[in-house]
Amino acid sequence: MAKKLITFGEVMMRLSPPGYEKFSQASSFELVYGGGEANVAISCAYLGMKASHVTRFPDHALGKAATQFLRKHWLSTEHVIYGDQMLGKYFLEKGAVHRPSEVIYEREGSSFSLIQPSMVNWEEVLKDADWFHWTGITPAISEGAYQCCLDAVKVANKMGITVSGDINSRNNMWKYGKTMQEVIPHLVQHCDVVITSSNGIKEMFNLGGPEEKFHDLAKILISQFSNIKKVVKKTRRPISASHNQIQGKMWNGTEYIKSDMLNITHIIDRVGTGDAFAAGLIYGLLHFNDQKALDFASAACALKHTVPGDVNLVSLENVLDLMEGDTSGSIKR
Amino acid sequence: MAKKLITFGEVMMRLSPPGYEKFSQASSFELVYGGGEANVAISCAYLGMKASHVTRFPDHALGKAATQFLRKHWLSTEHVIYGDQMLGKYFLEKGAVHRPSEVIYEREGSSFSLIQPSMVNWEEVLKDADWFHWTGITPAISEGAYQCCLDAVKVANKMGITVSGDINSRNNMWKYGKTMQEVIPHLVQHCDVVITSSNGIKEMFNLGGPEEKFHDLAKILISQFSNIKKVVKKTRRPISASHNQIQGKMWNGTEYIKSDMLNITHIIDRVGTGDAFAAGLIYGLLHFNDQKALDFASAACALKHTVPGDVNLVSLENVLDLMEGDTSGSIKR
Amino acid sequence: MAKKLITFGEVMMRLSPPGYEKFSQASSFELVYGGGEANVAISCAYLGMKASHVTRFPDHALGKAATQFLRKHWLSTEHVIYGDQMLGKYFLEKGAVHRPSEVIYEREGSSFSLIQPSMVNWEEVLKDADWFHWTGITPAISEGAYQCCLDAVKVANKMGITVSGDINSRNNMWKYGKTMQEVIPHLVQHCDVVITSSNGIKEMFNLGGPEEKFHDLAKILISQFSNIKKVVKKTRRPISASHNQIQGKMWNGTEYIKSDMLNITHIIDRVGTGDAFAAGLIYGLLHFNDQKALDFASAACALKHTVPGDVNLVSLENVLDLMEGDTSGSIKR
Amino acid sequence: MAKKLITFGEVMMRLSPPGYEKFSQASSFELVYGGGEANVAISCAYLGMKASHVTRFPDHALGKAATQFLRKHWLSTEHVIYGDQMLGKYFLEKGAVHRPSEVIYEREGSSFSLIQPSMVNWEEVLKDADWFHWTGITPAISEGAYQCCLDAVKVANKMGITVSGDINSRNNMWKYGKTMQEVIPHLVQHCDVVITSSNGIKEMFNLGGPEEKFHDLAKILISQFSNIKKVVKKTRRPISASHNQIQGKMWNGTEYIKSDMLNITHIIDRVGTGDAFAAGLIYGLLHFNDQKALDFASAACALKHTVPGDVNLVSLENVLDLMEGDTSGSIKR
Amino acid sequence: MAKKLITFGEVMMRLSPPGYEKFSQASSFELVYGGGEANVAISCAYLGMKASHVTRFPDHALGKAATQFLRKHWLSTEHVIYGDQMLGKYFLEKGAVHRPSEVIYEREGSSFSLIQPSMVNWEEVLKDADWFHWTGITPAISEGAYQCCLDAVKVANKMGITVSGDINSRNNMWKYGKTMQEVIPHLVQHCDVVITSSNGIKEMFNLGGPEEKFHDLAKILISQFSNIKKVVKKTRRPISASHNQIQGKMWNGTEYIKSDMLNITHIIDRVGTGDAFAAGLIYGLLHFNDQKALDFASAACALKHTVPGDVNLVSLENVLDLMEGDTSGSIKR
Amino acid sequence: MAKKLITFGEVMMRLSPPGYEKFSQASSFELVYGGGEANVAISCAYLGMKASHVTRFPDHALGKAATQFLRKHWLSTEHVIYGDQMLGKYFLEKGAVHRPSEVIYEREGSSFSLIQPSMVNWEEVLKDADWFHWTGITPAISEGAYQCCLDAVKVANKMGITVSGDINSRNNMWKYGKTMQEVIPHLVQHCDVVITSSNGIKEMFNLGGPEEKFHDLAKILISQFSNIKKVVKKTRRPISASHNQIQGKMWNGTEYIKSDMLNITHIIDRVGTGDAFAAGLIYGLLHFNDQKALDFASAACALKHTVPGDVNLVSLENVLDLMEGDTSGSIKR
Repeated sequence: MAKKLITFGEVMMRLSPPGYEKFSQASSFELVYGGGEANVAISCAYLGMKASHVTRFPDHALGKAATQFLRKHWLSTEHVIYGDQMLGKYFLEKGAVHRPSEVIYEREGSSFSLIQPSMVNWEEVLKDADWFHWTGITPAISEGAYQCCLDAVKVANKMGITVSGDINSRNNMWKYGKTMQEVIPHLVQHCDVVITSSNGIKEMFNLGGPEEKFHDLAKILISQFSNIKKVVKKTRRPISASHNQIQGKMWNGTEYIKSDMLNITHIIDRVGTGDAFAAGLIYGLLHFNDQKALDFASAACALKHTVPGDVNLVSLENVLDLMEGDTSGSIKR
Repeated sequence: MAKKLITFGEVMMRLSPPGYEKFSQASSFELVYGGGEANVAISCAYLGMKASHVTRFPDHALGKAATQFLRKHWLSTEHVIYGDQMLGKYFLEKGAVHRPSEVIYEREGSSFSLIQPSMVNWEEVLKDADWFHWTGITPAISEGAYQCCLDAVKVANKMGITVSGDINSRNNMWKYGKTMQEVIPHLVQHCDVVITSSNGIKEMFNLGGPEEKFHDLAKILISQFSNIKKVVKKTRRPISASHNQIQGKMWNGTEYIKSDMLNITHIIDRVGTGDAFAAGLIYGLLHFNDQKALDFASAACALKHTVPGDVNLVSLENVLDLMEGDTSGSIKR
Repeated sequence: MAKKLITFGEVMMRLSPPGYEKFSQASSFELVYGGGEANVAISCAYLGMKASHVTRFPDHALGKAATQFLRKHWLSTEHVIYGDQMLGKYFLEKGAVHRPSEVIYEREGSSFSLIQPSMVNWEEVLKDADWFHWTGITPAISEGAYQCCLDAVKVANKMGITVSGDINSRNNMWKYGKTMQEVIPHLVQHCDVVITSSNGIKEMFNLGGPEEKFHDLAKILISQFSNIKKVVKKTRRPISASHNQIQGKMWNGTEYIKSDMLNITHIIDRVGTGDAFAAGLIYGLLHFNDQKALDFASAACALKHTVPGDVNLVSLENVLDLMEGDTSGSIKR
Repeated sequence: MAKKLITFGEVMMRLSPPGYEKFSQASSFELVYGGGEANVAISCAYLGMKASHVTRFPDHALGKAATQFLRKHWLSTEHVIYGDQMLGKYFLEKGAVHRPSEVIYEREGSSFSLIQPSMVNWEEVLKDADWFHWTGITPAISEGAYQCCLDAVKVANKMGITVSGDINSRNNMWKYGKTMQEVIPHLVQHCDVVITSSNGIKEMFNLGGPEEKFHDLAKILISQFSNIKKVVKKTRRPISASHNQIQGKMWNGTEYIKSDMLNITHIIDRVGTGDAFAAGLIYGLLHFNDQKALDFASAACALKHTVPGDVNLVSLENVLDLMEGDTSGSIKR
Repeated sequence: MAKKLITFGEVMMRLSPPGYEKFSQASSFELVYGGGEANVAISCAYLGMKASHVTRFPDHALGKAATQFLRKHWLSTEHVIYGDQMLGKYFLEKGAVHRPSEVIYEREGSSFSLIQPSMVNWEEVLKDADWFHWTGITPAISEGAYQCCLDAVKVANKMGITVSGDINSRNNMWKYGKTMQEVIPHLVQHCDVVITSSNGIKEMFNLGGPEEKFHDLAKILISQFSNIKKVVKKTRRPISASHNQIQGKMWNGTEYIKSDMLNITHIIDRVGTGDAFAAGLIYGLLHFNDQKALDFASAACALKHTVPGDVNLVSLENVLDLMEGDTSGSIKR
Repeated sequence: MAKKLITFGEVMMRLSPPGYEKFSQASSFELVYGGGEANVAISCAYLGMKASHVTRFPDHALGKAATQFLRKHWLSTEHVIYGDQMLGKYFLEKGAVHRPSEVIYEREGSSFSLIQPSMVNWEEVLKDADWFHWTGITPAISEGAYQCCLDAVKVANKMGITVSGDINSRNNMWKYGKTMQEVIPHLVQHCDVVITSSNGIKEMFNLGGPEEKFHDLAKILISQFSNIKKVVKKTRRPISASHNQIQGKMWNGTEYIKSDMLNITHIIDRVGTGDAFAAGLIYGLLHFNDQKALDFASAACALKHTVPGDVNLVSLENVLDLMEGDTSGSIKR
C-alpha cells in the first residue's frame, strides 16, 4: 500500500515573465504555485505516494486557486486553513548562461505567517502518516509558524512517524526576533533524517572548524543529536545558469555514500530542484537501501531541472531509468 | 503650448486572467499598471498635455517596471520616489453580462503607503504646472499619504494652480485611524473642481437630506466651500457587466449642465472609466466651455470602456468625434 | 453540513481554436475537459456541495490529466476507473451572431464506452450521498454504460438517495443496438426529478399529441411514472449565437411554475449551460422551495453562458444575486 | 462541375495587435494575409468553387509565406509572379463600440505595384475560367497594375468569361498620375456585373445629380455602359464599431431588388465584409436567380463580420441557412 | 525541371503542450500535422521538388484542415480521399536532457486505416512521377493499407518509377492479423532503395547472425532481393534528449560509404528527423553521387532537429551549406 | 553624476516568429524595436547613464509606438523628429545549432532615410553630453543621414564631447551613390574611439596588406587618423548558431590589450550583441582603465546573448559580476 507523507509550510504564488524575458520586458506573467515543503509532497505524489499538505491561505478566490493547484497535483488539501491577509508571492526572472535568475519575494504579512499552533490538530493530521517533512524556511517566517512546526515534529515523534528536515537556512531570513541558532536545534532534535550542507552545519549549530568537510561535520552533528540517523547533502556545481552538475552525499552513521555526478546541460527551470532531491530521498529511503536511495534522490533532482515550475512532475519510471544509468532521454512511445 | 498636469497617488500592478477566464482557471496573468491619479495623467498625455506623476515604488526591478510603464505612456517620472517594501497590487477577474467583475486588492504596507511629506518638494514638482489632481483614495491609504496630499494642494493654491479632486471615498477604505469625514474637508477646501456623487456629498460632508438630488447637493457644497467653482458627477447606469450607460452632470455655480447619455453596448474593460472622465473634464475645462467640457469628459469616459487596461489611450481626435455625435465607429484609414 | 452529490458519465477532452478562429485557422487548441454529468458535479461543488464523479479513463498521462482537471475543480475522484483505449474527445469551434458553433465528436471506442457494471461498486460509491444524477447521454453510449447506470439508479433508490435524470436524448446517438424508447423508461422509473423537453417526452416515451404543451406532457409523464415528483424544462430562445434567452419551467405535481426569462446578451461559451441549469436545480431543490429552486437554476444557467469552458465556475453569491434580480453585473471589490 | 474564378490584385501582410489592444499596447502582432480580390477568391473556394489568384510577391521567405496562405485556403497559386521589392502591408487596430478601428497602409513600392502587363499571359491564366473579378483598388496602385487589369478584362471579354468589378474607389488612392475618372470607365466597359455605391457612380463617372438615388443612378450607368447587366450595392448602416446593419440592392436592367436588412450585433472583424458580399454575389449569380443571389450575397457578407481575418471562411451550408432565414446560430453537432 | 515525388501514408494531428510543459501542466496544445511519408514529401517540396501525397481523411472540418496543412507546405492534394471516421492523432510531450519525450498514439480506427485498394488509381496518381516512397508504418496499420501500398509499388515498378522504402517496423505495431515478417518482404521486392537498421534487417527478414554488422547485413539483404540497389542506415547516438549525434551509412552494392558524424547540441524537435534523412536521401540520389547524397541526407537530418513540428522546412541552401561543412549557423542577411 | 550619451540612427520595427518557428510557420510576430545606435543608448541607460537618441519616425501610431519603446527603456526622446513615410522594419527568423538565423530588411524609403541636416540642431542636442556614438550603418542609408551624422561629429568635436564610431560597414549597403571608402574617412577623422575589424580597416580605408593582423592594422589606422585614441575589435567565434565565443581586443596607442574569451553556450538572441559590446566599452572607458573597460565590454556583450530582443537590458551588477569572473549564473534572491 502507498506510503503517506505529510508536509507543512508556506505555498506562494509564483509569477514569471514568459521564456527568457526580463522583468522590464514582461507584459504577462506565467502563474504557478510553489513552496519547498509542498513541492516535496507533490513530487512524492507523482512517484506514487499519498501526500497531504498543511498550510494557511487567504479566504478568497486566490487562496482557493492555490488550493486547487495542490489538489490538481494529487495532494490532499483537507487540512488547509483559510484566514485573512494575502497570499505569499515570489517573482522569478529566468536567467541563462552567465545571466543569473532573479527572485523577488513578497511574503511578509502573508496568511501563512499568521498561522498559530492552535489552528492545527496534529494528531488528526498525522493519523495514518508514514513520514513528516519540514524545511528551515518555515521556522524563519514567524513565531507562530515555528511553534506550529515544533508541535508537528513532537507529535510525529510520539506517533512513531519518521521526520525529515531540509534545514538550509540563512540568517537574513530571520526577522521576527529569534535567530536560526536558537530555533533550529529544537526542531532537529526531533528529526530522523537531516538534509543540510557543510556551511549549514557550521552556521546553524556552531559546529566544526572552518576547514572541516561534510563527512566529518555530519559525524559531529550525529554525535550531538543522537536521534539523527542520516545526514544528507546535495552538492551543486554551477557551470552556468544553463548547465549545472549535481551529486548526492550521505553519512548514515556507518558509511559515507556518494551518488554519481549528473550533468544537467540544458536547464529548463532550476527552482525546486532541492525539493525534488528531498522528495527522491524520502521515496528512496522508504523503498530502497541507502545507496539506491541517494542515487534515486540525485536522479530525481537532475530530472527536475527539465520541468517548468517549482515541482518535479516526472514519473517513477523516469527516475528509475535515470537512476539505473540511462541518460539518453530516448523518446517513450 | 501644451498645458501641464501633476498627479499624485499610488500605482498598482494589475494582474488579470486572460479574456473571460475566472481566477480558478488562470494559468497566466496579463500585466499592466494603474492607479486612479496616474490613469488621469496618462489620459491627459494622450490628449496632448504634458503630465508628471508623483508616487513611491519599491527600489527593485518591479518598481522600475512600473516606472517604465508610466514613461512608455508619456508621463514624466522624474519625481518618482524609490524605497523599501512592495508594490501595491490588484487582481482583476473580468465579468460579462450578469457575472460581475471581481477585484482583490493587496495594497496594505505598500511602498506608497509609507510615503512621508518630507519626501516630496512640492514647490519643485509643481513648477510650471497648470493643474493638480488628486483622488479620495490617497488620503485613505495612510497618514503619510494624506499629509503629503494636503501639502500638495496647499502649495498648488499658493502657486495659483487649479486643483481638482475626485473624492468618491468609502468608509471601509479608511483603516489608519482617521475617518473620511475628518480628512476630506481639509483637502476640499483647497479644490477648484470637485468630482463626486450625491451619496459622496451626503456621506463625506454630512450635507443634505436623504432625498436631495445632485443638483441641490452641489449647491449646498459650494455654499460650504466657497473655493469650489464646479461640482461634477458621472452617472453610470449598469444594464449589465457588458452594457452600461454614462452621463455627465455639472453645477458650475450658475447653471446645471448635462451631457447626452452614452450607451456602451459592448464593454471591453470597465476599470478606469471614472479616471477617463476626470481626465476628459480637466482637458475640457482647459480648452472648452463648460457644456463642451462635460460632453468631452463623457465621450472620453465612454471610449475608455473599449480600451483594455486601466488607462484611456484614445486620441484627441477620437474623443472630439464622439463629442460631436459620431457614434458610428467607422474605420479610420 | 454540505450535501453530497454523485454523478456518472463520460468526461471528454475538449479542444477548441482560440477566440473565434475557425477550425481552418487554428494553430493551437485550448484544452479543457467536460461531460454533462461531471459538469453538474463541478457546478455543485462550486456552490458548496460535496461531489464525486464516477467515470472511466485510459491509464496514461491523458487519463490522469482528465482526472486532475476534476480534482482541481473540487471533485472527489476516488471512484475513477482506469483501463485501456482512448479518451473521448470533442472539438468545438465557437460561433457568433449568425455563425453557429460547430462540434465534432470522437467518442466511439472510448475508455468510458467500455465500462462494465462489474467495475463499479455502487453501494460503496453512494455511501453518504444525498443525490445521484445521470443524463440521457450515458445509456446511449454502450450497453455497458447503460447497465452500469441502471445499477446506479436501482441502488440509489434502495438507499433512499434522490435521483435526477437529464434525459434529452436524440435517436442518432444510439448506435449499439438499443433505441432510446427501449432504454430510457427503465431508467426513468427510478427517478425523482426529470429534466426534459416537450419533444423529449413525446419522442422518448411516445406520449402526448403533436400539439400538446409542456404543462400537459409533464402531467401525463407523471401519470405514467408515479415515482417522478417534478418534471422540469429549460427553455432556450436563441436570438443568435451571441444572444439567447433562458427560462425555467416546472410541473411539481400540483403547480406549474416558471422563472423569469433571462436575457444573455453577450454569450462567452454556450456549452454546458444545460448542465449548469441541472446543477442549479439540484442545489435549489436541496435548499429552497420549488419556485426559488427554479429561479436559482435559471440564474445559474444564465451565468454559465459567461464562463469559458464546459463548467459553471461561479460562486453561490453570484447565483443568489442574480436570482434576487440584480442583473447589473457591478464590480465586486 | 465546380465553376472557376480568376482574381487579380495585391495581397498584403496584415498585422494586428491581439484582441482589442491599441497600437500603443502591442507586444506582438497577429499575422494573416489579405487583399480585396484574393479575399473574393478564397470565399468562393470555401463555397465550393475553383479559384486561382494572380498577383506578384517578393522572391523571399515572406513572399513565399503569403503564397502559402493562399494555397492553404484552397487557391491555385500557379500564376503568382515573384520579383523584387517588399510585400505590401497593413496594420489594423481593432475598435469597438464608439472607438473606430484604425488602419495604416504600407503598400507604396510593393512588389505588386511594380507588375507589368508582360508578366501575365492572360489567355493561359483564363483558360477554363468561368468568371473574372477585379476591384477599383488595383488600377489605383500603378500604371502597370492598371494596364495589366485592362488586359485581363479585354481577354476575358474575348473568351466569353463573365467579368465583375467592385469599383468603389476614392480619389486619394490615385497617386501615379492618372485619376479614377480617366481610368475606371475603360475597365467598366468590359464588365458584366458592377458592384458600386451611389457616391461611386456620381464621382467616378460624373453621372446623376446630387439627390439621385441608387435605383436611378444604376439605370443611368447601364444606359452609358450597355455591357453592364447588373449594378449591385451593399448598404451598411453602422450603429457602432460593434454593431452594423447590412442590406443588398440590385438593378438588373428590369427589376429593382433588395435583400432583407441583416443585423450584425457582435462584430468580430469588419475587414473584408465587402469582399464577402462580392464573393456571395458571384456564387449566387452562378447558381441562383437574382433575388436569391442577392440574399446569398448579403448573408455571406453578414457572416464574414464574425470571422477573424480578411477572408470569409464559412461554409456553403452556413450561408444557405442564413439566406433561408435561420438567424439563430444554433450549435451544429 | 523539378523531379516529382509521390508518397502514401497516414497523416496525424499532432498535439503538444507548449514549450517543455508536461501533459499534466498543459492548458493548451500546439497543433500541427505529420506522418512519416508526408513529412518526406514536404521536405522534398521545400528542397524544390514537386510532391503529392496520397492519404485518407475524415470528411469534415478537421480532415479539411489536415489537407490544408499539406497544401500550405506545397504538396499537391488532389489525390486525398475523404471518408468516414476520425483523424489519426498523436500527443507529444517534449523532453529535455535526461527526461525523455513521451508520445501517445490514437490511430486505431482512423480514416486512413479504413482505406481500400479500390480507392486509389495508382496509374493516375503516379503519372509523371519520378519517385515513390513508402514506410514500414503503413502496411502495419491495416490489411487495406498494406494492399494499397503493395499496389502502389507494383504499379511504380511497372511504370519505371524509383521506389524507396523506410522499413523500420516494430512487431508491436502489427495488430490486424499479419506479422511484419510475412508482409515486409512482399513490399521490399519492389524497392530500389531501402532505409533500415541492422536490427531491422535481422528482425524483419530473419537474416544475419546476432553479431553481424550493418555492412554485412546490407550485403546479405541485397543478395536476397536483387532489385535493391542501395541499403541505407541513419545512426543516432543519443547523448541526451537535448543532444544527439547523427551519421549516415550506405552499402550501394560496391562501396560502403559513411557521412561525417554531426553533433546536434541543442535539439528543438526530434520528431521527423528520420523522415528528413529519407527526404535528403531521395533528393540527394536524384541530384548527386552516392557520397554527396549521403552527406546531404545527414545534413538535412541534422537540420530537422532545429525545426519545430514534424517536418523539415529548411531550404536547399541551408542543407548545401551544412553538407559542405559550414556548421557555424551564422546569420543570413 | 551620471554621464550622458547621445546616439543617432535609425530605429526599426523588429518582427519575429515566436520561439524557433520558421517564417513559413508563423501565425504571429513578436514585436520589439531596435537599431544599432539606439541599442547602445538603451544599454548605457540600463547601466546607469543618461541617454538620448536622435532619429526620425513617421507621424502616426507606429512612429509613436517606436518612440514609446525608447521612452520605456529610459531614453530621452525629446529630439525625435516626426514626418512622412514608413517605419523601417526587419524580420528575424531565429536559428539554432547548424540552422542560421535569417533576416529580411525593409528600410528603403523609411522616414529616417529622408532625414535632412536642417532637421537637427546639434548644438542643442549635444548640450550637457559627455559622449556621442554613431555607426557605419547610418551614413550608408542616405545622403541626408550621412550629412546629418557628419554635422553631429563636427559639433561634438567642437564641444569637446568624446566621439565613438562602430564602423563595420559592407559595400552592398551603400545604394545612394556614394561608397563607404569615400564617406567613412570623413567621419572617422572626428572620432576618438573606433570599433572595427581587420577586414573593416582593410576595406574601408584601403590600409594594410592581406596578411596583416588587427594589432598592426590598428597602428596604421591611428597613424593616418591622429585623432583616434583607441581602436577596438570584438572577435566572435561561432561554434554554431547556439554557441559562440567572444573576445575583445584593443590597441590604445601604447598597449595591445585582450579580454578573456567568453563562451556563450546557450544563445537566446544574437542580435545586438555588437551594440552591447559598444555600450559596455563606452561605459567602461568612462569609468575604468582600458583593460577593465575591455573586460566590461566583453562581459556586457556575452550577457546580451541571453536577452531576447535587440537590446542589452542587464544591470550594472550583472556585468560587474561577470567581468570579475563569476560565470556561475547563480540565482540572485
